[in-house]
Amino acid sequence: MIAWRDGDWIEDGDVLPADDRGLTLGDGLFETLLAVDGGLAHAGLHFRRLAASAAALGLPPPPEASRLEAVARETLTRNGLNRGRAAVRLTLTAGRSARGLVREPSADARLLVTASPAPEAGTTVRLATVSVRRNPASPASRHKTLSYIDSVMALREAHQAGADEAMMFNTAGRPASAAAANLVFRIDGEIVTPPLSEGILAGTTRTRLLAALPEMVERRLTRAEAKTADALVLTNALRGLRPALSWDDRDLPGSGELRARLEDRLSLAEDRDSLG
Amino acid sequence: MIAWRDGDWIEDGDVLPADDRGLTLGDGLFETLLAVDGGLAHAGLHFRRLAASAAALGLPPPPEASRLEAVARETLTRNGLNRGRAAVRLTLTAGRSARGLVREPSADARLLVTASPAPEAGTTVRLATVSVRRNPASPASRHKTLSYIDSVMALREAHQAGADEAMMFNTAGRPASAAAANLVFRIDGEIVTPPLSEGILAGTTRTRLLAALPEMVERRLTRAEAKTADALVLTNALRGLRPALSWDDRDLPGSGELRARLEDRLSLAEDRDSLG
Repeated sequence: MIAWRDGDWIEDGDVLPADDRGLTLGDGLFETLLAVDGGLAHAGLHFRRLAASAAALGLPPPPEASRLEAVARETLTRNGLNRGRAAVRLTLTAGRSARGLVREPSADARLLVTASPAPEAGTTVRLATVSVRRNPASPASRHKTLSYIDSVMALREAHQAGADEAMMFNTAGRPASAAAANLVFRIDGEIVTPPLSEGILAGTTRTRLLAALPEMVERRLTRAEAKTADALVLTNALRGLRPALSWDDRDLPGSGELRARLEDRLSLAEDRDSLG
Repeated sequence: MIAWRDGDWIEDGDVLPADDRGLTLGDGLFETLLAVDGGLAHAGLHFRRLAASAAALGLPPPPEASRLEAVARETLTRNGLNRGRAAVRLTLTAGRSARGLVREPSADARLLVTASPAPEAGTTVRLATVSVRRNPASPASRHKTLSYIDSVMALREAHQAGADEAMMFNTAGRPASAAAANLVFRIDGEIVTPPLSEGILAGTTRTRLLAALPEMVERRLTRAEAKTADALVLTNALRGLRPALSWDDRDLPGSGELRARLEDRLSLAEDRDSLG
């Protein structure tokens, strides 16, 4: 792997020192973008989220979008990933700092850019409810920070239960998200996704769906209400729209149909945008 | 700084590659030990906690205690920190892995050891209640993981409020801990600390106090009850026992006296242990 770090290209080497806060404290952010044939999908949404989260957490701003895009494309090229689907990752750390929780005002943020083959998209998944809960009063639940161990452990728990993905409730006991994907339910014909205040990430695919489907509703769902859904689709920038076959002991027979409908509406909206 | 990494000594260089899960996902653990004149304080408690948390999170076990101790002492020596107080940090990461949340079974854990001057101990602090909450259903709240951004943001918020330390409630709305310290209240003459189930770390100083003071009680405290405390002491391995002068708009006139009492009892218990 060839990584870009603040202007340098590093081939299979070490990239960060032992006092970088991204490493010592998970003090930083990341983005993973889908690339198709060397082009970045929805880069503006990712770059804007990164800048907004950096501002919210008091981290130095990332480089401007045109610079990020140029580096991301060059990273794809240098890693031979200009054909087909690939994943580009931007990692912004708070930089080097003396021991302790306090960021030094003089610390420079570090930016790493890497690229990998993309995971398969659109596959069906079975969900298991896990014990790890999302916390609306935690920056780690609301932003895509380097402090990502809750999601690691949630997915691990789902796999141990024989499922493919985790159904994470929040600390108030309401369905919130998967380990690294947002949730779109169909309940009594209504298309519903939990609001950001439930302790979830502002996913880029979620944002695109809300724009493309004016009838889609953001609202809190109780566990009991969510259990009446006949369809559930997971959304993630790299994996696209994944229909849920089941959640715990409930089958979700309508998920394939819901997925097709969401996919169509996204395509339509983007065709319209590209005409505009 | 000279860092030890899995058998190599690295002077001021980069220590981890871009695909190390400690860096990409906060997937790992750390410990910070107090060293005095080159000797490690309560190393057994730290090493046992590290091993227990690694097992709980499914991470490979750290090296055995005698090896950790030897490396920690050598790291102090190489960094010229064998006189006075210093801090040794052990960082255990889940190692290198392909993109995604799933750990590869073949991944080798990485161990980094660093040393720094220790922060001042025993200083008085003023606490401000912050919005970041500890989550009993989160591995990041229960273990000392590399996903530490909640504590970073909690302390930042306290500083922005003009205080020295954060009073963190948990998601159930009960007082839980400071950003990186546990809490010991005195309420109506009773010495009380919140139980681990409130979403806090099993602090080594907290463990020592519970052993030294049989009358100290672990129980949940409501916010209202905690507000009737006349004394509050913060416990942390590096910073020792710190008396709280105030919490938000309440003064805590008995904290200095409580701190002296706790300190005496710890010393007595350790004198007794060293005689045994």
